[in-house]
Amino acid sequence: MQFHLHQSHNSIGDFEEAKIKLLSIMVRPGLHIFPELFMTGYPLGDICLQAPFIKNYLRFREDLERSVKQMPENPDSVALVGGLSYELGEEGVPKSIRNVIFEVTPGKGVKEIYTKRLLPNYDIFDEQKYFTPGHTPGVWEWKGQKFALMICEDMWASSFHQMDPALDLVKEGPFTAVINLSASPFDVTKSDKRRDRAHTLSHLFKAPFFYVNRVGGEDEILFDGSSFVINGDELVVFAPAFQGAILTTTLPKSVEYKPVGVNICENTWESLFSPRFSPEKTNPTRLKVWSDQECQTVFEALKFSLQEYAQKNQFKKFLVALSGGMDSALVLTLAKLSLRPGQELEAIYMPGLYSQAISWELSHQLCLNLGLKLTSLPIKFLHSNVKMAFQNNFQEPFAGLTDENVQSRLRGLLIYTRSNQTGAMVINTSNKSEIAVGYSTQYGDAVGALPLLGDLYKTEVYRLAEWINDKHNDPIPKGILTRAPSAELRENQKDQDSLPPYERLDCILEGILSYRLSEQDLVSMGFAVEEVKKVFQLYVKAEYKRRQFCPIVKIKAKSFGFGYRVPISKHPGIYQA
Amino acid sequence: MQFHLHQSHNSIGDFEEAKIKLLSIMVRPGLHIFPELFMTGYPLGDICLQAPFIKNYLRFREDLERSVKQMPENPDSVALVGGLSYELGEEGVPKSIRNVIFEVTPGKGVKEIYTKRLLPNYDIFDEQKYFTPGHTPGVWEWKGQKFALMICEDMWASSFHQMDPALDLVKEGPFTAVINLSASPFDVTKSDKRRDRAHTLSHLFKAPFFYVNRVGGEDEILFDGSSFVINGDELVVFAPAFQGAILTTTLPKSVEYKPVGVNICENTWESLFSPRFSPEKTNPTRLKVWSDQECQTVFEALKFSLQEYAQKNQFKKFLVALSGGMDSALVLTLAKLSLRPGQELEAIYMPGLYSQAISWELSHQLCLNLGLKLTSLPIKFLHSNVKMAFQNNFQEPFAGLTDENVQSRLRGLLIYTRSNQTGAMVINTSNKSEIAVGYSTQYGDAVGALPLLGDLYKTEVYRLAEWINDKHNDPIPKGILTRAPSAELRENQKDQDSLPPYERLDCILEGILSYRLSEQDLVSMGFAVEEVKKVFQLYVKAEYKRRQFCPIVKIKAKSFGFGYRVPISKHPGIYQA
Repeated sequence: MQFHLHQSHNSIGDFEEAKIKLLSIMVRPGLHIFPELFMTGYPLGDICLQAPFIKNYLRFREDLERSVKQMPENPDSVALVGGLSYELGEEGVPKSIRNVIFEVTPGKGVKEIYTKRLLPNYDIFDEQKYFTPGHTPGVWEWKGQKFALMICEDMWASSFHQMDPALDLVKEGPFTAVINLSASPFDVTKSDKRRDRAHTLSHLFKAPFFYVNRVGGEDEILFDGSSFVINGDELVVFAPAFQGAILTTTLPKSVEYKPVGVNICENTWESLFSPRFSPEKTNPTRLKVWSDQECQTVFEALKFSLQEYAQKNQFKKFLVALSGGMDSALVLTLAKLSLRPGQELEAIYMPGLYSQAISWELSHQLCLNLGLKLTSLPIKFLHSNVKMAFQNNFQEPFAGLTDENVQSRLRGLLIYTRSNQTGAMVINTSNKSEIAVGYSTQYGDAVGALPLLGDLYKTEVYRLAEWINDKHNDPIPKGILTRAPSAELRENQKDQDSLPPYERLDCILEGILSYRLSEQDLVSMGFAVEEVKKVFQLYVKAEYKRRQFCPIVKIKAKSFGFGYRVPISKHPGIYQA
Repeated sequence: MQFHLHQSHNSIGDFEEAKIKLLSIMVRPGLHIFPELFMTGYPLGDICLQAPFIKNYLRFREDLERSVKQMPENPDSVALVGGLSYELGEEGVPKSIRNVIFEVTPGKGVKEIYTKRLLPNYDIFDEQKYFTPGHTPGVWEWKGQKFALMICEDMWASSFHQMDPALDLVKEGPFTAVINLSASPFDVTKSDKRRDRAHTLSHLFKAPFFYVNRVGGEDEILFDGSSFVINGDELVVFAPAFQGAILTTTLPKSVEYKPVGVNICENTWESLFSPRFSPEKTNPTRLKVWSDQECQTVFEALKFSLQEYAQKNQFKKFLVALSGGMDSALVLTLAKLSLRPGQELEAIYMPGLYSQAISWELSHQLCLNLGLKLTSLPIKFLHSNVKMAFQNNFQEPFAGLTDENVQSRLRGLLIYTRSNQTGAMVINTSNKSEIAVGYSTQYGDAVGALPLLGDLYKTEVYRLAEWINDKHNDPIPKGILTRAPSAELRENQKDQDSLPPYERLDCILEGILSYRLSEQDLVSMGFAVEEVKKVFQLYVKAEYKRRQFCPIVKIKAKSFGFGYRVPISKHPGIYQA
């Protein structure tokens, strides 16, 4: 028996594509497995409630049914396909929507065979907002063989859920194989976690585990594919990350399965959200440093996210504002290394009153290395004009933070003017440390369609840059890696004048954001009280900036963006000890 | 027996205030009722998962418990108070969080007596993300009387839920009274809906219905209070909207209760989201026009939202950019009419190349009427400087949309420069029609902390302005109400050159957003195919602008903002017929 794992890569709502893919493969004999919600794409959000979408989807389903019935019968071919099942009330309002598996049989038709039981509703997931859960274990028979079916989260029972579909399902065995259709969002550690889990479940079910995941970048959320077949302790076969693929394989031979404990299905907060303190005991604690393999994964993820957003939103040009600093240099390098035929990338350098000559030289050198033209667009003149306009009309000159923000906002205005002129997508260059403490100017350096580095702490930005230099012939000038970070918005400004050193800052932030630590917890890890208090204060105060931020490419389990939901208005002492 | 309904007005996480309020009232005899989650505030979002918040909350609970026990015993006084109940696992990670009612008895202590059963998870609600539901009807006895307890949504069984707490609870009767602790978000029609429902439930339970709702503006979400006691068909007593209040009353006398049908608890999509087509048959269909009462309610809601945001985020000054058009005139008027002692309001007029003299005159007249100083800050010079900078550095002049956006972004930059200088809160002036079709410039006129009119269609902006003129001595010059809407970003520009007339546009938008209609549906209501197609196209294309918009003050059941979750990246034909 042949198994085909279709690690598909299609857009939300592209029914035509889904239909063509499905119909064209059904002539090949074997058991075809498509990802969760292959028919519609995922995540849909409110789209799944909108009548025009529902009409189009139901029309697609009818078309598909008709086409499948018109095919010659073929008892050797069948497909398991993820889709939605609607029950509509009066006036077409959905009474229930279920996330299901359809069995598609040539010459016969399309039959619903299983409803997802465990609907994730934490972090970026809103499935309980839209879907009704199933209550029946996924048992399916084909050609005299019995298969165990799951959809994504069904394999992840945890303390968040009050039910465990795997333990329920295993009682219905023995099974020839376990099959999981997924639309599982990427994070750096996710692939390992999925495989670990699959090994456990393969032992539990005493059967091979087939895992098929979708590929796609949906704004900030990435689906990496990384499908696989696991049998006991063995990784039988796997697909690459971040590209469409078809894995064809036969049923793996039986292996010796190990007994599995009863508590297999208890996931903790930490295992779900995988925070990243270094296991080494240091004082203060440090962040874990990415391995080369992790850098490679993040590198691929970020290039993919950029290309997905561009392709799905019809951008063929990209635009990056270079400052001579680390973040913009890394963003430009990533964009360049992701570039496809027919695409263009433009860099602009917008020096102000406090920009040092070295910033221009380093930006220039970077563009030489990357083979890109660099345009300089000074803001000094506009800056002094704004100053004058204020002096004339308000009789008040400005200085300090106001003056800094004006420069940053002028750059925001100019880069978007260029974007309007060329149709280029502006890539934002903010990093997670900045976003966390509000070290950016709203409508200034915070502008952009997508911040590639928005889920990377500053220390991780450096680590990734060094790794790229190592693997890709040093595109980033050493001077950028070694100079002290600065916004260059006032004389001799350094990030470290306003913020703790990034090595400490990033660790405190990870403590707050992923470990949910309190002041006392952080102090007991070796951080100074004043430093911790300051970071909390900055973090709380920056909420309004995060609310208007662009979608932040998610590469970790806990990120800012869609899955982060914190009100702006609240008592200022809310986190105070 | 005395009942005290505490329509409280306190901030998220202000435990000190909650404790003082609670302890100070317990000396008064009677049954004190506080709103849902009075102890913590609502909605908390991810805050309820954060360890420092949990620690502070549990410390407050211990403090409260101790203080209550130290009070002299008083068998005539008891309080029902909404709060959270945590079950913490290893390392303080919440295993379950329940939304509960505490019974607080002087000299005795604090006892958990009921868990919310129906957790709303649609639209702005994310309660299933955080809370675990209860499974037991809310029966509570005090002084030999039996009371039925509910928390907010428990009274709203609907097709969204698969359970009906009211029908479950009524079986446990008879009850002396039904008591509902709520944190129920405001919309224009909500108060009527709540009362209608309470009449029905009072008849069903054959007992008076006590409804206590919180007051507060939490970013975009407003809680109006509007607490009441209803008995059968009678409205016994009610509290004002948008202010803290204590209703003190005795148990209403028994009335004749009517039999209630079985299907009382079926809510439809339309009754939950109350769309607003006019019931009159016209071709094409029109929006329903707000009544005077509705205008009054919206007027109060918008003033309240501004003041709440300002107070909770420490703003004492407000800043509005006047254009000489309707939206900014209404925003300035609302801000002025909401002003409290010690607050300041500043208006700025930023004329460009295409601003007409009449725009200045009307802005000037408006400020005279409102007793406000108006500063003019022309952008012409800066505009031509930006143009020159592009010509010099890119050898490409710009025109068309780019040129329009530059003007709008210069205004965004200047108003935020002024805001930085004075610490004023910038009030955004966009309306719902613009936000829906993307008729605004990102980082230009789309900037601001809060868009007061973001949930009002343009025709509603006019209606409210006319109502205000009628009731408040014509502050808005007639010329503003009668001139054709224009962004004045090019020669002789009119909104109507790019958009359908607002009367039709608004109705099509309401069809798409609240009725979830398709192209065909709208065409069958009398709209031209091309017009409908165009609106759909503009609506889909504007998603990226909405993602970075400020929190939009919610005054309707279906609004943009937190409860609106639609991906940017999707197949462009997703809604096409």
